[in-house]
Amino acid sequence: MRLKLIEKHRSFGGEQCKYSHYSEVLQCVMTFSIYLPSNKEMKKIPLIWWLSGLTSTDDNFSQKSGFQRLAEKYQVAVIIPDTSPRGEHVADDEGWDLGQGAGFYLKATQDPWAKHYNMYTYIVDELTTIASTLVPNFSGEESIMGHSMGGHGALVIGMKNAARFKAISAFSPILSPSQVPWGIKTFSTYLGGSKASWKEWDASELVKEAGIPPILITQGTQDQFYPKQLDETIFLKNAQENNQVVNYKKMEGYDHSYFFIATFLEDHFAFHMKFLR
Amino acid sequence: MRLKLIEKHRSFGGEQCKYSHYSEVLQCVMTFSIYLPSNKEMKKIPLIWWLSGLTSTDDNFSQKSGFQRLAEKYQVAVIIPDTSPRGEHVADDEGWDLGQGAGFYLKATQDPWAKHYNMYTYIVDELTTIASTLVPNFSGEESIMGHSMGGHGALVIGMKNAARFKAISAFSPILSPSQVPWGIKTFSTYLGGSKASWKEWDASELVKEAGIPPILITQGTQDQFYPKQLDETIFLKNAQENNQVVNYKKMEGYDHSYFFIATFLEDHFAFHMKFLR
Repeated sequence: MRLKLIEKHRSFGGEQCKYSHYSEVLQCVMTFSIYLPSNKEMKKIPLIWWLSGLTSTDDNFSQKSGFQRLAEKYQVAVIIPDTSPRGEHVADDEGWDLGQGAGFYLKATQDPWAKHYNMYTYIVDELTTIASTLVPNFSGEESIMGHSMGGHGALVIGMKNAARFKAISAFSPILSPSQVPWGIKTFSTYLGGSKASWKEWDASELVKEAGIPPILITQGTQDQFYPKQLDETIFLKNAQENNQVVNYKKMEGYDHSYFFIATFLEDHFAFHMKFLR
Repeated sequence: MRLKLIEKHRSFGGEQCKYSHYSEVLQCVMTFSIYLPSNKEMKKIPLIWWLSGLTSTDDNFSQKSGFQRLAEKYQVAVIIPDTSPRGEHVADDEGWDLGQGAGFYLKATQDPWAKHYNMYTYIVDELTTIASTLVPNFSGEESIMGHSMGGHGALVIGMKNAARFKAISAFSPILSPSQVPWGIKTFSTYLGGSKASWKEWDASELVKEAGIPPILITQGTQDQFYPKQLDETIFLKNAQENNQVVNYKKMEGYDHSYFFIATFLEDHFAFHMKFLR
């Protein structure tokens, strides 16, 4: 594993870094960003994962959310993966909601996607190993949050690894991918036409399992993709039938943008820190 | 004056808006952004001007600084002009530090620049009139801040209009444009070779005047343009000889980026609010 540091900025007392590396899992060069708080008191540092939405890279959250103020305040590291494998040799599509920039944090099984599109294993295994070497005094505690496609990713990865992630939160997430246009398009492409194979990547199915982490979701009422792509009905019904407490908040007048995320990010950090301490 | 609203996002309870309009002063279509706080208590609202640096538009500060949290906290409106006239018919240069994106907030006198490059009058007159119509319950109180070229702009506009602006602050500003490469290049191009004509646009000269507003400056020590483009020596010497108190702070390890601005923006807002209340 050779990491190349490509950016480093002091930010709120800590360091905002960007790395590139060759991913063995994805078989391409990837970038990711990581914030390390100042840790002046040399305490144990937990790690929050942020998964971004369609068309994003690791830069959107690092540049537009203002999260560094909160990561420093709470003394937590934050890692931001890219949203898909990248490169000229990596399968792609003309649409902005499929292919590069739209990895959906799953493990593709269909050609030509299966070779590179395995963001799930990249995050859960390969990037996890890297992160653990980069966070000084890592406490071993982790949680996960994300936005839109990345909100779906946070829910799926968090629930599939319930013993590992102490909390999950999402801004305007895709909650029932098997039922909405974005999810149907990508799942049928990456996973094939058999809907049985979609279930393990569908948050509305996974929320039926026992012992999943606490969940916070924030959704803006003026979101251009709500409710069509982001409908919460099935997810909340299944959660309730499973006695899983989900804190689902609707915020009047907010849209799908980083202006929305920045506004409510402190609520999400505070929620995560309840379970990371 | 016809304004076209091209973006509106709820942000921290207030509204982040982006407008386009035809500028009579600049003779081209311009965009600007403005934040209006929620003003739930229906109080009088002051206005802070933000001037951006080279290559920026009004989007950089609105998307990367996180200022909306502070504008809502202090219940102040913030207006962000673009950095130059724009358009295919507007004179330009191949360099990123001259022409479009590099208006330097002055009034050009040389051809082909004089026709459009008058950001000074655009801001001090035309955009001021527009802003006063957009801020509900405008208190009439104003202050000005900026970054790099925009830090220079804030100092120059603030000091040339000392009765109007209650406070001035700048992040990593050009302080002696007549002495440094960026300033020499633009001043000789926009204003001509006679250095006498440069003085009215040079913060190090203007700081010799009486009765100028209180000034706060923050500079990162790892700024890639410091000290070459951003040297403070002459400005601080002239300020001291004039008994003008300038709070000039150096911050260890910080660079020229918005990560730096975001970190210290709360200090700047707190400084401005001392004089806007």
